[in-house]
Amino acid sequence: MNSHLLDELIQSLRCLPGVGPKSAQRMAFYLLERNRAGAERLSKAVTQALEHIGHCSECRAFTEEPVCRLCRNTTRDSRLLCVVGSPADMMAIEQAGSYQGLYFVLAGHLSPIDGIGPREIGVDALVSLLERRQVEEIILANNPTVEGEATAYYIASLLQDKSVVISRIAHGVPVGGELEFVDGGTLSHAFNGRQRLQRS
Amino acid sequence: MNSHLLDELIQSLRCLPGVGPKSAQRMAFYLLERNRAGAERLSKAVTQALEHIGHCSECRAFTEEPVCRLCRNTTRDSRLLCVVGSPADMMAIEQAGSYQGLYFVLAGHLSPIDGIGPREIGVDALVSLLERRQVEEIILANNPTVEGEATAYYIASLLQDKSVVISRIAHGVPVGGELEFVDGGTLSHAFNGRQRLQRS
Repeated sequence: MNSHLLDELIQSLRCLPGVGPKSAQRMAFYLLERNRAGAERLSKAVTQALEHIGHCSECRAFTEEPVCRLCRNTTRDSRLLCVVGSPADMMAIEQAGSYQGLYFVLAGHLSPIDGIGPREIGVDALVSLLERRQVEEIILANNPTVEGEATAYYIASLLQDKSVVISRIAHGVPVGGELEFVDGGTLSHAFNGRQRLQRS
Repeated sequence: MNSHLLDELIQSLRCLPGVGPKSAQRMAFYLLERNRAGAERLSKAVTQALEHIGHCSECRAFTEEPVCRLCRNTTRDSRLLCVVGSPADMMAIEQAGSYQGLYFVLAGHLSPIDGIGPREIGVDALVSLLERRQVEEIILANNPTVEGEATAYYIASLLQDKSVVISRIAHGVPVGGELEFVDGGTLSHAFNGRQRLQRS
């Protein structure tokens, strides 16, 4: 190409997930031609984020403070602790808006084949948090994947002797979906997890 | 959200074309969790590009040097000058690899309704370049859109008294396409622009 710096800009944009060579090129030209202010803001935001964002010492979520806003929020129900596999999952639950308890963010899920054990994903930090805090219920909201399920069951068995209720988020048909397009595994779960509508 | 800097990172990623709220969130988490080196490189590349990349004083393409590599390349055929509407178009032609002449990059196309006239897109710079250089043929490779066509015809009429051949890239059916899916306007152009296969 015609410019080393432009090549480097295009290459560096390709590190973003879902951005191929054509999109990276389009982004680079867009930033240079039409949105230099946006480009400046982006570069600054990335630098600032890299420099200052770390993990909350309580819940392990991303934050630039020692303890995140959510953990310091006294209006949240500290008796509930929701365990998720990533900060993105936590954000999705927060955006849904119905959960009012606190969180603990694991660094992914157990995957022995890749050498990822309980220590690597931060299960010890979870256990030590439970020793420090008065938690009444742990809601395991790990992903409904094989690794997520395994992680949830591992944590459940690890904590079974503690005086704490352990629950798993419900599997079933998604709201607004059509039964016809739901996969068999999900349908089986939906039948096994059926709930009575009238009290017996 | 839980972190001002994370919010700012997500918002700033949304300035990229084609990036909505969900993608921006995914990109932000990806950069923080999995690719901090890539993030650093991106931030640096954007800053460097903003600081150093300007326009080539000859062809108006993006470059960090006063005159770009392509214009300084003496192996290129300086008798041919291809006029394009954007640096991205120039890059597309370069990537095709068959054109060996030089370029002139206009800043878009004429659009009187938006107040964009010949001055705004740099037609004067093109005229002054032609006065300085020995050009034998100008190939108008403006986009095949209404604005692109209008710009091509404007330039052609402006330069009609000069001793220079003025040509327009061919319109027709794209290579590898199927006739069935080609639009009517393109098909009409393909028929009007038909070429004899045997010499008469």
